[in-house]
Amino acid sequence: MGDGRSARAGWFDDRTADETRDLVDWAWTTSFDDLPGEVVAASKRLILDHFGVALGGIDHEASLAALGVLRELGGTAQSTVLGHGDRTSVTNAALVNGISSHVLDFDDTHIATILHPTGPIMAAALAVGEWRGRSGRDLLRAHVVALEVATRVSRAIFPEHYDAGWHNSGTSGTIGAATAAALLCELAPGQLVHALGMAATQAAGHREQFGSMSKSLHVGKAGANGALAALLAARGFTAAPDSLQGRRGMFSIMSTGSRPATLRGGLGSEWEIFAVGIKPYSCGVVAHPPIDAVRQLRTERGVAPQDVASIELRVNPQVIELTGKQEPRTGLEGKFSVAFCAAIAMLDGAAGPRQFSDDVVTRPDVVALRDRIHPEADPGVGNSQAVAVARLVNGSEERVEVTAASGTPENPMSTEDLHAKFLDLAAPVLGERQADALLATAERLEELESLDELVAASVRPQPARA
Amino acid sequence: MGDGRSARAGWFDDRTADETRDLVDWAWTTSFDDLPGEVVAASKRLILDHFGVALGGIDHEASLAALGVLRELGGTAQSTVLGHGDRTSVTNAALVNGISSHVLDFDDTHIATILHPTGPIMAAALAVGEWRGRSGRDLLRAHVVALEVATRVSRAIFPEHYDAGWHNSGTSGTIGAATAAALLCELAPGQLVHALGMAATQAAGHREQFGSMSKSLHVGKAGANGALAALLAARGFTAAPDSLQGRRGMFSIMSTGSRPATLRGGLGSEWEIFAVGIKPYSCGVVAHPPIDAVRQLRTERGVAPQDVASIELRVNPQVIELTGKQEPRTGLEGKFSVAFCAAIAMLDGAAGPRQFSDDVVTRPDVVALRDRIHPEADPGVGNSQAVAVARLVNGSEERVEVTAASGTPENPMSTEDLHAKFLDLAAPVLGERQADALLATAERLEELESLDELVAASVRPQPARA
Repeated sequence: MGDGRSARAGWFDDRTADETRDLVDWAWTTSFDDLPGEVVAASKRLILDHFGVALGGIDHEASLAALGVLRELGGTAQSTVLGHGDRTSVTNAALVNGISSHVLDFDDTHIATILHPTGPIMAAALAVGEWRGRSGRDLLRAHVVALEVATRVSRAIFPEHYDAGWHNSGTSGTIGAATAAALLCELAPGQLVHALGMAATQAAGHREQFGSMSKSLHVGKAGANGALAALLAARGFTAAPDSLQGRRGMFSIMSTGSRPATLRGGLGSEWEIFAVGIKPYSCGVVAHPPIDAVRQLRTERGVAPQDVASIELRVNPQVIELTGKQEPRTGLEGKFSVAFCAAIAMLDGAAGPRQFSDDVVTRPDVVALRDRIHPEADPGVGNSQAVAVARLVNGSEERVEVTAASGTPENPMSTEDLHAKFLDLAAPVLGERQADALLATAERLEELESLDELVAASVRPQPARA
Repeated sequence: MGDGRSARAGWFDDRTADETRDLVDWAWTTSFDDLPGEVVAASKRLILDHFGVALGGIDHEASLAALGVLRELGGTAQSTVLGHGDRTSVTNAALVNGISSHVLDFDDTHIATILHPTGPIMAAALAVGEWRGRSGRDLLRAHVVALEVATRVSRAIFPEHYDAGWHNSGTSGTIGAATAAALLCELAPGQLVHALGMAATQAAGHREQFGSMSKSLHVGKAGANGALAALLAARGFTAAPDSLQGRRGMFSIMSTGSRPATLRGGLGSEWEIFAVGIKPYSCGVVAHPPIDAVRQLRTERGVAPQDVASIELRVNPQVIELTGKQEPRTGLEGKFSVAFCAAIAMLDGAAGPRQFSDDVVTRPDVVALRDRIHPEADPGVGNSQAVAVARLVNGSEERVEVTAASGTPENPMSTEDLHAKFLDLAAPVLGERQADALLATAERLEELESLDELVAASVRPQPARA
């Protein structure tokens, strides 16, 4: 960055740490044309998946409650609420769209840090991009760059930050959202440092909320707070010069360990976007390997629910830590019960939004099978792996082993499955024809002069008036 | 709480910890008529002071930047922005009013935990109370109860939480704001638990931001996020049942130690509101004892700036920790430099908003005197105490000792001084006559049927049109 770097020196406060400064400098100077084709392709897959999961979540009671509040609060018609079509303020739209994108627990995952990056980033980026009349390329650049920034912040404080109990989609997610919003607002680099500082000091979200609606609130607030940070910075609102790395800043306060070198390591050459997986199941990514394993028992070994005396699941200890609820009471809590997830995988062969409902969680046959499933922590099992041993009522035993769960970077979702997932979520909201049209529009995102067509295609058709 | 308690058992989830439950139960069942007269009187003093400091801050560049953003975002005309008179959404009004109430660092302080309780609480309470047509008594009850809740949460995690680097006016402040908003929205107790949970998981704000505008953003966001939590809870949005005390909840994540017993200790008999001080100087409360000491050198010993060879300040170690900036560059940073504070106390005999400006901080005579002032940490000096030893150019020495800083509960501000502080802040905005009228209205707060008169009196008169 030689000459350009020194020319840009005036952009930065001399108290900003070098790693933060290099990250911001890279974020600001990286244009769409700097992005390799495979990076753009990966971004388009994640953005398409985002539209699917966000549309799938728009009628969840959490999304509807938030929408009700935001209709009451009102706002300038700047940006669109996905599905419902309300035009409201940037921050309102980001809040609801962020909630609906996460409420099904079906959004993408940066496997190394269990960060769900695209929800908060797109919540802010789409709202700001629509408002400011940005192009498809602007959106792709903002998504890619913000994802690299958010995942590097997430890496810098993982695992201590997450282990302490922080929901990093709320915390690092706010950083990502602010970055995307700042780029789409065309802030100067100095303002971008302030926007990131405001994002850091607004970062929030506790894992205690897993299983309640507030888990998705974290993502909605990350989107809205990130957008607010950019808007404030654009008007000269200031944050501390070293908000991430300073003595009382984000890394020091919110993590017992940090590795700031990750902030700038591999920028522009190693792309974290390739380490983001797309989920086949609408629950925490840690429960995916055991779900895969039980589905294999069903499809490859022909095991039926009534054959099962018990199933022993050998899983990474994190699976028990995160999804160890024994008796989930609601659909949301079901996502945090690996025994329940395994039960529906055996009964329905699926673990989608339809399975994670209050009715299914309390259904007697589900509860009976769930109670015959015994998860067991095994430090020798990797976090993309699982072993399932079914003891059958006839006395025999079936054993399957998963080595790379579906949806992980090592076992990525095929384009066909991605489209099927998208249409499965979007068609019930938009109708099949419009869902197809939205998919086709998203496929040529880099050609769009503005985001209007994309946004219009993501609004549920209104019934014709009499 | 015997019978009533068991009748209310159905209100609570059985997973909510007893201490949280008792606190919520007390908050919900405590009416205005339950409040002792001295408690109401203390609340009225703090509310009057709030109007003064918030009006004093409305034209600060931080308040104006936020106002600019919120005018752009727009919102339903529910609540009023103090001073400016914009009518906007509850959350927008809470955000700007919270920022303006804290940006001068002149708002009240819960001395034991360095929490500034009334800013975030009133930011939410006034906005919700105006919108919902509540009375003066409703506002007083909400302020008192929310203050007891916020200070008890603050006590439960002090000092570990604050020492780690959290700005508890942002964190515990969000809890206070949500409580006030929930009471004024007349939520059911079960919803109040969810509102507190959403407040806990939105709680944010790092001490790294001290000296930047984002310090006041914490208070504005506490008010807005607390109000949002109440509005969401009113529509059935849920949080975890044990968001404060649960294993991955606020106390565990945001503090290395906690004492949940403080949540319910002394409720209704020991009032934390009596432990809240009103500031005579517009900077961190820890710098008040040395400012008092230097003012005594000036007024009681007749020391003039040109007499001073050097001043040694013996202060509590926290003073150095919090206000140890050697070379502040801006007015905001000046608040975090005890040497600068002492210099202006000697030069101007005051430490008000006029002194904490960029111009004063960099004035050559101020810098020259500041560099002759040497603060020194002394664990033997209490946090309301200070010793100043001036070495004079004529070779003699003057020594003064402060045992209870002005504005602390042991040395409270007189009503006359409170009124003078209020008028000094409010009159330049409202004009003297209207400032007097606002004071008179606030004095009979418990008689007001609605808050409209109070709010109208706090809006700057518009110039008559030609």
